[in-house]
Amino acid sequence: MSNALRTAAPDPAPPTTPDPLEVAADLARRLGETANARDQAGGHAAQERGAIRASGLLTLSIPAEFGGQGADWPTVLQVVRILARADSALAHIFGFHHLQLAGIQLYGTPQQQRRFLTLTVEQNLFWGNALNPLDRRTAAVDADYGYTLDGIKSFSSGSVGSDWLTVSAWHEPTGTALIGVLPTRQPGVEVQADWDAFGQKQTDSGNVHFTGVALPATQVLQAPGVAATPQSTLRSQVAQLIMTNLYLGIGEGAFEAARAYTVDEARPWFASGAQSAAADPLVQHRFGQLWLKLRPAAVLADHAARELERLFRLGPQVTARQRGDLAIAVAEAKVLAHTAGIDISNQMFELTGARSTSVRYGYDRFWRNVRVHTLHDPVDYKIRDLGRHALDGSLPEPTAYS
Amino acid sequence: MSNALRTAAPDPAPPTTPDPLEVAADLARRLGETANARDQAGGHAAQERGAIRASGLLTLSIPAEFGGQGADWPTVLQVVRILARADSALAHIFGFHHLQLAGIQLYGTPQQQRRFLTLTVEQNLFWGNALNPLDRRTAAVDADYGYTLDGIKSFSSGSVGSDWLTVSAWHEPTGTALIGVLPTRQPGVEVQADWDAFGQKQTDSGNVHFTGVALPATQVLQAPGVAATPQSTLRSQVAQLIMTNLYLGIGEGAFEAARAYTVDEARPWFASGAQSAAADPLVQHRFGQLWLKLRPAAVLADHAARELERLFRLGPQVTARQRGDLAIAVAEAKVLAHTAGIDISNQMFELTGARSTSVRYGYDRFWRNVRVHTLHDPVDYKIRDLGRHALDGSLPEPTAYS
Amino acid sequence: MSNALRTAAPDPAPPTTPDPLEVAADLARRLGETANARDQAGGHAAQERGAIRASGLLTLSIPAEFGGQGADWPTVLQVVRILARADSALAHIFGFHHLQLAGIQLYGTPQQQRRFLTLTVEQNLFWGNALNPLDRRTAAVDADYGYTLDGIKSFSSGSVGSDWLTVSAWHEPTGTALIGVLPTRQPGVEVQADWDAFGQKQTDSGNVHFTGVALPATQVLQAPGVAATPQSTLRSQVAQLIMTNLYLGIGEGAFEAARAYTVDEARPWFASGAQSAAADPLVQHRFGQLWLKLRPAAVLADHAARELERLFRLGPQVTARQRGDLAIAVAEAKVLAHTAGIDISNQMFELTGARSTSVRYGYDRFWRNVRVHTLHDPVDYKIRDLGRHALDGSLPEPTAYS
Amino acid sequence: MSNALRTAAPDPAPPTTPDPLEVAADLARRLGETANARDQAGGHAAQERGAIRASGLLTLSIPAEFGGQGADWPTVLQVVRILARADSALAHIFGFHHLQLAGIQLYGTPQQQRRFLTLTVEQNLFWGNALNPLDRRTAAVDADYGYTLDGIKSFSSGSVGSDWLTVSAWHEPTGTALIGVLPTRQPGVEVQADWDAFGQKQTDSGNVHFTGVALPATQVLQAPGVAATPQSTLRSQVAQLIMTNLYLGIGEGAFEAARAYTVDEARPWFASGAQSAAADPLVQHRFGQLWLKLRPAAVLADHAARELERLFRLGPQVTARQRGDLAIAVAEAKVLAHTAGIDISNQMFELTGARSTSVRYGYDRFWRNVRVHTLHDPVDYKIRDLGRHALDGSLPEPTAYS
Repeated sequence: MSNALRTAAPDPAPPTTPDPLEVAADLARRLGETANARDQAGGHAAQERGAIRASGLLTLSIPAEFGGQGADWPTVLQVVRILARADSALAHIFGFHHLQLAGIQLYGTPQQQRRFLTLTVEQNLFWGNALNPLDRRTAAVDADYGYTLDGIKSFSSGSVGSDWLTVSAWHEPTGTALIGVLPTRQPGVEVQADWDAFGQKQTDSGNVHFTGVALPATQVLQAPGVAATPQSTLRSQVAQLIMTNLYLGIGEGAFEAARAYTVDEARPWFASGAQSAAADPLVQHRFGQLWLKLRPAAVLADHAARELERLFRLGPQVTARQRGDLAIAVAEAKVLAHTAGIDISNQMFELTGARSTSVRYGYDRFWRNVRVHTLHDPVDYKIRDLGRHALDGSLPEPTAYS
Repeated sequence: MSNALRTAAPDPAPPTTPDPLEVAADLARRLGETANARDQAGGHAAQERGAIRASGLLTLSIPAEFGGQGADWPTVLQVVRILARADSALAHIFGFHHLQLAGIQLYGTPQQQRRFLTLTVEQNLFWGNALNPLDRRTAAVDADYGYTLDGIKSFSSGSVGSDWLTVSAWHEPTGTALIGVLPTRQPGVEVQADWDAFGQKQTDSGNVHFTGVALPATQVLQAPGVAATPQSTLRSQVAQLIMTNLYLGIGEGAFEAARAYTVDEARPWFASGAQSAAADPLVQHRFGQLWLKLRPAAVLADHAARELERLFRLGPQVTARQRGDLAIAVAEAKVLAHTAGIDISNQMFELTGARSTSVRYGYDRFWRNVRVHTLHDPVDYKIRDLGRHALDGSLPEPTAYS
Repeated sequence: MSNALRTAAPDPAPPTTPDPLEVAADLARRLGETANARDQAGGHAAQERGAIRASGLLTLSIPAEFGGQGADWPTVLQVVRILARADSALAHIFGFHHLQLAGIQLYGTPQQQRRFLTLTVEQNLFWGNALNPLDRRTAAVDADYGYTLDGIKSFSSGSVGSDWLTVSAWHEPTGTALIGVLPTRQPGVEVQADWDAFGQKQTDSGNVHFTGVALPATQVLQAPGVAATPQSTLRSQVAQLIMTNLYLGIGEGAFEAARAYTVDEARPWFASGAQSAAADPLVQHRFGQLWLKLRPAAVLADHAARELERLFRLGPQVTARQRGDLAIAVAEAKVLAHTAGIDISNQMFELTGARSTSVRYGYDRFWRNVRVHTLHDPVDYKIRDLGRHALDGSLPEPTAYS
Repeated sequence: MSNALRTAAPDPAPPTTPDPLEVAADLARRLGETANARDQAGGHAAQERGAIRASGLLTLSIPAEFGGQGADWPTVLQVVRILARADSALAHIFGFHHLQLAGIQLYGTPQQQRRFLTLTVEQNLFWGNALNPLDRRTAAVDADYGYTLDGIKSFSSGSVGSDWLTVSAWHEPTGTALIGVLPTRQPGVEVQADWDAFGQKQTDSGNVHFTGVALPATQVLQAPGVAATPQSTLRSQVAQLIMTNLYLGIGEGAFEAARAYTVDEARPWFASGAQSAAADPLVQHRFGQLWLKLRPAAVLADHAARELERLFRLGPQVTARQRGDLAIAVAEAKVLAHTAGIDISNQMFELTGARSTSVRYGYDRFWRNVRVHTLHDPVDYKIRDLGRHALDGSLPEPTAYS
């Protein structure tokens, strides 16, 4: 276990919580102060994780009956977006924490929900992800207490510094994967920080190594051989919408940086005849074009979040048709947010010019972050799914990505 | 007066009205049967105007207190969109009829509203537009009964075949324009059908000639020299949203034509290896891209329609700020609808192929119609307005176009 | 046989020929005078075909040794482009005439080349196309004199009004197609003008019906069962480059129309603050963007034309590799010309505005013509061919389209 | 003076020179081995500058009569492009070295040309730039030996580690700038490496401080008050074409990286059904689209290079018209290369996917490098210049940027 992990010991959650969007805005402001420096340094952001924990926002999506703030998904996703404007790596950790909590609600028994969500509130736990479904190297072997886990799981976002993990493991006898939860800090679990992408550097992603780790039956959310349901497959839609709001937040952060720089620092081009950069018609026109990327993405992301909220509360009553329609709404928002994030973080420099490329601004981090994160699954296949739907009404096949 | 005008004598409105969207769908179906043939022929669509009149939809936007159906703007604009899918020229006439009724509500005194809206219900009147603000050739001269009008007014949409007209006229003494209403069929008023664009052929647009026409003071909605208010300048936002929904309806009609043709008639390209055109990944991907033009435009148009409805009901309480925010929402929707309509009607042929260019389908009318109509005011200046707003929060200057 | 066909009797070619580009420019000027009116009327342009014939340009691509002008392909294709600026339908007929002459040179024996090319010069013949390879309804049955043809051939460009035709026919015993030439005006050959697309209206395309038509062995250019060679498959590259130059010519015609209208007739938008439309920075910028569509397309088309010329003169020495590299160069130019033609003819109206949509200008014909013609084969498969080539160097498979 | 500068002492040029393109390819291969690591480290690349010097390519553009290789501009620019594929920062230093040599030929007297070009060959000198015309902080005061220079000059590309500099200085009495040359390593000249952009890190750009530096009259290339000529203003076209080829080289490097990764390492997306990533039609299509960015840019850059060569050799005979036509050709190529470089380095990741973002590949450097470098002057004003030219034939005003 790395040293960094030890420093992130659980603190108690704060007693009462004010408006979460205000809390998020305040937290974002603080993260923003060091975001550029930390982006350049990379590594584990122990102190900032502490600030997230201290903000009380880790209990945001937990129903009030378990002691949480009971926020709806539009609120949780808005918080993700607000944080991503300032620091998209920590926003990712935050969003994926809530994805794990969503998983418990979508897969877990009532007893499990009570146990793990209450525990999360009481100990103000931070959850990480060890669920990469395409990596089957972690095996679950039957044991009388449940299962024994051995092997490696890659691309585990937020695992470094987490308290608990959601984990998937391949179960050979049934040829399926189980899903369970377990504490990160225990013998036999080793988290290796090996994420080395050029963006989203502080997402605490890594390889998790399991060596003879006991997974008691009571911690198994989805047993091997159990078929997915429309309800349980909502999890991938939660994940996709978290990403959508991450991309959007990055796009909004980049847009605001470009706007402020143009108004405050940029000089008019000598051949423009304009009194200021902001008064140049070509500058205004290009800002208008970028705005027209951002706004529709935000409106459709909000629409999809409301639909997710509605279906999430339906519980087991969700139908495959409803789940599929949600997947279409999410796909629409995700492609638009992808495009908005990429285009704005790329084109903003045509507006801000050569002097804005100094590392003291660090504006390239918007592009690097959104460029890395938007590769989670190929945008061209989201577009194809939408085309198929438009052609004959077919719904996306429920997978970990759609 | 042309012969066509005489045939369009007012019929009484039907007694009760069912769901207007169903009525519109039914009307659209009937207009669609002859839309291609009429598009190629051009001219005045007397019979189809009769069908619109008979549908009862002319009273759709009139408040219930005056005997109308009291529909909200989202509903009225949805009807415009539904009709435009089938026949965007007649949808334009229909939309501009309701624009005149909006003008009466935004400019008129309570007495005028009661008089002209009640009259419209009782006689099931069809209104036309003679309000082009850039054409000052019609003069209003003071008279003891009000004003005398003389001169020409161009680009008068829906004037051919109308019962009443809204008219603007230049008043030299004050250097401003008045706005009034008057019956189309009276001595001194001559409507000349001279619209010869390559699209939107049956919009009954023309030059209206006034020769010593008396405009009584009781028919003046806005007297010369009266300053525009945030409420009165909502009229241009109603007009812009009607256009937005026209472009959207054309885009939706083109998309559906391309979809149906691809599924039902297109052959897979021999080099694709696909079993059908609809199964070709490149075809699916391009359909997905076009879908991503259409959906955001529709969602933002609906959003703007709800905002219009809210401000319209505020009446004189509307502030300049609220009016400006609406103008931004409308501009966003209008540019997206413009782009969606143009791109879909243009690119659909990459999907449907050479055989779909036969005049028996008439699919080029989608492009011709939306191409002509989107030139009402330059899209680049809408984009610039949005850029300015994004840069410093400035609101579009209230004009007849923004 | 239609009446129109009779009027197009062969005239003798003019004695000497000046610079063909000047002749073409002069011819284009004359075609341009009536192009808009004829586009709207459609039908067979007997008089204009006569003007083409009288210009002497029908012998342009015929080698000097057979009495022709011996122009190289860059010159022939430049003439196609010049004519297409003014009248892309007649430019198509002209280009496809030379495509037939290319076929004779690529497939024919030395004797056949001498016979048919000399005949073309002597009688100033106009050639048409009846070669659609996807239509196998015309059958060739073995006869002692050669073959007997029966059946229908669709999409026969330039067949109406032609003197001679190149024809392909399906030969059942070998399961292959033969290619031959025959006079259009003979018993058993009936040309039916049934082209009804919304663009390229006067391309004289139709169905050709063959009833017991004798095709002597001396008129068979490619016998059944004969394998295609790199040289013979150059024909499809000639065809593709003719289309490339047609699209380019239309794009250039549209660009020039937009330019002249903007400078001479357009009014500055009232909100621009510009003294003239041409001085508006947003107008200048959009013209710059369209220019950047046109120029690369023209430069790459010229490059491909020079490569075609080089390989054409190599004759049987052409290798598959050289032929494939040419196909890549042609595909690059064709996609760029396609995009330039479509984008310019579509977007020009954002620059010229509402008043430019009058049918008296007929500017929509640029879009209609290029929209119809660019559907000859799907652009997405040309792009895919280029992607494959870029990925692993693979060359397009020689077909009638690549 | 920094320590790094001292290490870069002049070595003698190699005796004979083989094909410069082969030399460049070999040099690029060696630079490429460490380019990713050096990009991440930043700073002065003393060893690599040594390799460039040792390659003999510093004399490439020097006429044979002065002992140089006498290469034409197409060759010099091709070398810039080849180097930029591997290492665009050092390619920039290399290109700007030759820009200084061009300046000597365009501004200098025959005596100066002989003296400085011969010296460059004999001592294998490396030239840097201290010519930023927008920075007037360096003043030239009249002295009996010529001028005395005092002040700062920013954005001095290649100044760190250079042997000689071209410098501009503001001459108050005439209100104009002079241009001169001087050795970098002398008392009173201090080069400060302060370039801190997120890309093109090793361009050795910095502030040059002059303190009482004597500039003898014999080293003044353009005296104060001397009017620019069409010939002398060719310098900015040389500079613009060097940048064009840098962008192109980066685009080509990124394309090749994406291609090789797709063929060698990428996995097909599970939903594609393709056997390999390279066999996926959507992947092929996107590669085709990027190819269509690269090829026209390369072809037009080559065309402009040939035009530059032609005018450069005309010397004082160059007319303003010829110079303007060249500026148009260069602007076309530069905008296309800009767009190609940005689009390819940005979109390549949609093709290569998440695993390709590892810092061990360092593929983000393509985007960072081209993003920073393309901001030299605003692309929207190049596009506007092209639009103006297209509208009325007007030529770009000769400036340091056009």
